[in-house]
Amino acid sequence: MEKIKTSLEQLCINTIRTLSIDGVQKANSGHPGLPLDAAPMVYVLWTKYLKHNPKNPEWFDRDRFILSAGHGSMLLYSLLHLTGYEEMTLDQIKQFRQLGSLTAGHPERHIQTGIEITTGPLGQGFANGVGMAIAEAYLSATFNRPDFNMIDHYTYVLASDGDLMEGVVAEAASLAGHLKLGKLICLYDDNRITLSASTELTFSEDRAKRFEAYGWHTEVIDDGNDVAAIDKAIENAKNEKERPSIILIRTHLGYGSPHKHDTFDAHGNPLGEEEVKLTKQNLGWPVETPFYIPKEAADFFHQAIAAGKRKEEEWKHLFSEYEKKHPDLAKELRGMIKGELEQGWDALITTFPPLAKGLATRKAAGEVMQEISPKLTGLIGGSADLNPSTFTDLKNFGNFENPSKAEGDLQGSVGGPWNYAGRNIFYGVREHAMGSISNGIAGHGGLIPFTATFLTFSDYMRPPIRLAALMRLQVIFVFTHDSIGLGEDGPTHQPIEHLAALRAIPHLIVIRPGDANEAAWAWRVAIMTRSAPLALIFSRQNVPTLDRSQYASADGLKKGAYILKDAPDGKPNLILMASGSELSLIVEAYEKLKDKASVRLVSFPSWELFEAQSQEYRDSVFPPSVLARLAVEAGVSQGWEKYIGELGCMISVEDFGASAPGTVIMKERGFTVDNVCEKALKILKKDYP
Amino acid sequence: MEKIKTSLEQLCINTIRTLSIDGVQKANSGHPGLPLDAAPMVYVLWTKYLKHNPKNPEWFDRDRFILSAGHGSMLLYSLLHLTGYEEMTLDQIKQFRQLGSLTAGHPERHIQTGIEITTGPLGQGFANGVGMAIAEAYLSATFNRPDFNMIDHYTYVLASDGDLMEGVVAEAASLAGHLKLGKLICLYDDNRITLSASTELTFSEDRAKRFEAYGWHTEVIDDGNDVAAIDKAIENAKNEKERPSIILIRTHLGYGSPHKHDTFDAHGNPLGEEEVKLTKQNLGWPVETPFYIPKEAADFFHQAIAAGKRKEEEWKHLFSEYEKKHPDLAKELRGMIKGELEQGWDALITTFPPLAKGLATRKAAGEVMQEISPKLTGLIGGSADLNPSTFTDLKNFGNFENPSKAEGDLQGSVGGPWNYAGRNIFYGVREHAMGSISNGIAGHGGLIPFTATFLTFSDYMRPPIRLAALMRLQVIFVFTHDSIGLGEDGPTHQPIEHLAALRAIPHLIVIRPGDANEAAWAWRVAIMTRSAPLALIFSRQNVPTLDRSQYASADGLKKGAYILKDAPDGKPNLILMASGSELSLIVEAYEKLKDKASVRLVSFPSWELFEAQSQEYRDSVFPPSVLARLAVEAGVSQGWEKYIGELGCMISVEDFGASAPGTVIMKERGFTVDNVCEKALKILKKDYP
Repeated sequence: MEKIKTSLEQLCINTIRTLSIDGVQKANSGHPGLPLDAAPMVYVLWTKYLKHNPKNPEWFDRDRFILSAGHGSMLLYSLLHLTGYEEMTLDQIKQFRQLGSLTAGHPERHIQTGIEITTGPLGQGFANGVGMAIAEAYLSATFNRPDFNMIDHYTYVLASDGDLMEGVVAEAASLAGHLKLGKLICLYDDNRITLSASTELTFSEDRAKRFEAYGWHTEVIDDGNDVAAIDKAIENAKNEKERPSIILIRTHLGYGSPHKHDTFDAHGNPLGEEEVKLTKQNLGWPVETPFYIPKEAADFFHQAIAAGKRKEEEWKHLFSEYEKKHPDLAKELRGMIKGELEQGWDALITTFPPLAKGLATRKAAGEVMQEISPKLTGLIGGSADLNPSTFTDLKNFGNFENPSKAEGDLQGSVGGPWNYAGRNIFYGVREHAMGSISNGIAGHGGLIPFTATFLTFSDYMRPPIRLAALMRLQVIFVFTHDSIGLGEDGPTHQPIEHLAALRAIPHLIVIRPGDANEAAWAWRVAIMTRSAPLALIFSRQNVPTLDRSQYASADGLKKGAYILKDAPDGKPNLILMASGSELSLIVEAYEKLKDKASVRLVSFPSWELFEAQSQEYRDSVFPPSVLARLAVEAGVSQGWEKYIGELGCMISVEDFGASAPGTVIMKERGFTVDNVCEKALKILKKDYP
Repeated sequence: MEKIKTSLEQLCINTIRTLSIDGVQKANSGHPGLPLDAAPMVYVLWTKYLKHNPKNPEWFDRDRFILSAGHGSMLLYSLLHLTGYEEMTLDQIKQFRQLGSLTAGHPERHIQTGIEITTGPLGQGFANGVGMAIAEAYLSATFNRPDFNMIDHYTYVLASDGDLMEGVVAEAASLAGHLKLGKLICLYDDNRITLSASTELTFSEDRAKRFEAYGWHTEVIDDGNDVAAIDKAIENAKNEKERPSIILIRTHLGYGSPHKHDTFDAHGNPLGEEEVKLTKQNLGWPVETPFYIPKEAADFFHQAIAAGKRKEEEWKHLFSEYEKKHPDLAKELRGMIKGELEQGWDALITTFPPLAKGLATRKAAGEVMQEISPKLTGLIGGSADLNPSTFTDLKNFGNFENPSKAEGDLQGSVGGPWNYAGRNIFYGVREHAMGSISNGIAGHGGLIPFTATFLTFSDYMRPPIRLAALMRLQVIFVFTHDSIGLGEDGPTHQPIEHLAALRAIPHLIVIRPGDANEAAWAWRVAIMTRSAPLALIFSRQNVPTLDRSQYASADGLKKGAYILKDAPDGKPNLILMASGSELSLIVEAYEKLKDKASVRLVSFPSWELFEAQSQEYRDSVFPPSVLARLAVEAGVSQGWEKYIGELGCMISVEDFGASAPGTVIMKERGFTVDNVCEKALKILKKDYP
């Protein structure tokens, strides 16, 4: 910084400020307070430290910058515009919060524009940052070699008071401290004003001490305009290798605004024309020219372009050397960066033999994970302290841990390395952070993260599941223990509404396989779906593995619903459909009903995959003329009406479960072959055309 | 404790242990590890400190005990049985985890048995405890008078490693520290083993330091069997008036089990017959008599019966004095304890005059809150830092704060007292804790808690919403900014799937009023619904206040759906239905369509209220013969199929929204009168019978 005259420095900082408040004012909507107060810290970070190439925002080894306080979006757009990101034109900034612009109210992931991740719901960005730092640590441990630090970048997060109050931040910060993610640096905009109140009303904890308790390095800066102190603190944070860092920077919301500075009104409302004018006067800025960018400031910010180009070229040069020295690694890394799957990644998947006594789909899926993991170096994940129940260990691929951890007799470890090259992340009982961290891993690029917990605890993870869907990120959310069939743990653990609640999320693909071979296909589909999150839903209890010589192949799962077995003459007068553990009920019922009806069995593991099929295919499975339809699923019926029609019927669960052995409660709630047959015959008796 | 011989003390502790493992073993399902390790701490608490009356579990001024680590349920059942709760028979203990028993896998709220709250999903119980402590503080500040501490009890929480890892605990603990809830005491069972791993793999933060940072008093005990140390620590915690207390007690999971002690296998699996035997031998216990309770132990535990009876009698005596000295207060408190509503509580609710330019339902609802709050002393709540947007301040009823806080010029305050008698809880940006704390407030009894945030952030609160529904607790969850209509904040803030996801939860009543007078009725229904949670869904944007002289009365809301205006001849051939902000669209469409069709308008604010009506009523609103039906709602259609039928149609939102002014995005997605008319005419053209 020394080389820059103070006046230029202030000019640059105020350019960020005024551009941001002009954008908010033009939209007459948005959050001016944060850009005004946080401009100095991002000025230092973006002009001195951030490794990025504005002409190639997708450069893989760039530093990641996450605006966790997404409501301050104009701050990010200003920085992107000023440092030369081509898509972030001044016109875009003038189109802030308008339909079709890249400048949404809260940042929306768009790598080509330099927006790493969608933020706004508080706490998410911070936890995404932990995920990005995990991704960096894993990739560098896996692919770097002496003299070849192909992966070597920092993750910077700008977080607010609101972020730090969110539980997901607490979870993620605790885990980041445990994992000693030294390349994660958080700038905490400690402005002490939230949307509705001073933090003195709500948030009086000792924040630095709390992060020290998590094992973080902390720096405290009393004056958010003290550029030199911010500079030094970031330098210290970068030099701290063993711990993640948080820099607590005391700022004043709406800095520069004579009347709204330090008021919560400046948080989420435009300043107003008059106050914008007064603020600019106060900052020594021309008031008559909105979106004014002084040439000296523009030139200074544009240095990022040449610097970024040079850095990427150095990296590319190194990569070409790396390719010569480590051709196999280079090839694999390149493929992962491009998002390609290793050839033959699914070659080891075996077919499960028929098994009448059955196999829980969670177990079958666990076996499939062992078969696919050797060829999918990018597959990394873990459970929220439930591996012994979810069966989601990658058995031979180690614990993701800081290498300083002694490899000892600690419980819960799996075979393989015990360092950052480990692929099993022990998330602890932190479902929410697990989801958000996984979004960060996916958002980083190169990897396919998975999570695992019980289906009922999907409730703890809905914010990140929704954001994964909004961003079209490939995150594989595994949920086991998928119905009242889990038994004794009782209603707190028995999902009832969760399938419906997940299916309601746009772009999320929910798959509930009906036997072991469908479970294998669910995993295939999950890996091959590169631009959407998936929820894979597995049973705790055993379900028969169907003899596929008697039934259609399980690859029908790809289409969401398929004819498992048709009426002998291909002219059904009754359709039985089911998903998951209830599939075996309709299979058995088929045999009992076949003398009384022409039955078609439909396995229906995924609504979303089915809806993606042609109308022709859909009608071929559910001919509009066949109105006698029975659906069986151990969850609420909400939405099934679409498939059973008004004349059909459903065996579902419309109330909470009860603590009892799984077989007992399933029977008590009508999930028996007899009940399926009885209901089916009742439907038939209505004598539909 | 001094009076008790060591041998009796050990006998009592081991009685808790062995009873618990016998219960788990008989069920062949459950969690033996925690009861074995935590028996000494609960022995001290329950025999020396806990104020309760086993013969009247509902005594209002009892201490509350919450087993946040709900998986250790057998520990609680053992204590209840041993201390003389009549419903908790030995037979119930033998029926652990069986259908219809009171001894579910995880504790299920059942005050008559002494189970204060349903726990199991980790973190919830701890946050419920914060809510109970808030309830106690509020009621004591409101009703106690010199010499009359009518409300004066402690809240004790037993929490595990898993609890402390959950974000909701972080949120709740931070708030509890801020509020200085000195009568909240947490026993932390620091056994360092979770279901899948040693905490060394996941949870290495400095827990004591973290709670100190939150402003808690901490006590650390190195040996969980050191009864004297536990005793002293609880005494210290009770003497600490200014801060909540956490006692970190180092225990060893599965204590006493020769082979499973300190292993995660002891966490969630029965020990097995052989290990149960070895454990009993190790503890000096007869192995041949399951469920053995030594008489000396039984007698000692039963002292709780006489002690409890005496304490309640003292309290009753004091209450009768209080009634003489403070008859009005006593009457009000008695009514609240009984769960009665103040006479005329709704007398001040005014009717909103017709207003074509409209009024946001969030604003209308806010006005209604001012009208009902004076007579509902039990109505207490707040928002997650969104009061200026949710309009949920109770303007004249102060901030719920520790009285040590100076009443100053802090922002965000409302009029009225600034102490524990304040009724506005400033939750900070802590949606999850807000929900869980509210469950605790409701679970305490006497109060009606409400929460408020944006509808999209209902995702952060699903675990407590579900638990409120499971427990049938009256918690009023207010959600504003209810659709893409909120505009510029964009897709992260625009709810799409949330109505469907909430409606999927059994027993939760979701109400989305269509104008100001329906909003008033929504609040009436919410207050009158004493045994279910409700989600009240309000618009950010203005909606016309209907002229009810032209339309049916808004009290139709009580029935969930009602005929707002019928076809002139009462013989509709087309039904238009809508909820919330879309109601005005069908109202306008009616006028445009009336020459082309016989239109019936149905206002449909609540599925759950409608489903509770008779079949006759439901058919009268939606005659089966009228198949031409159009529903309009700015959310996913999932589940509406039930009401529109196969031949009907819907204007819905099936994809995420976009950042743009609300009117722009609503129009872009087809929420216009023209589109309603066009779709309606298309349906009609199909020329249904």
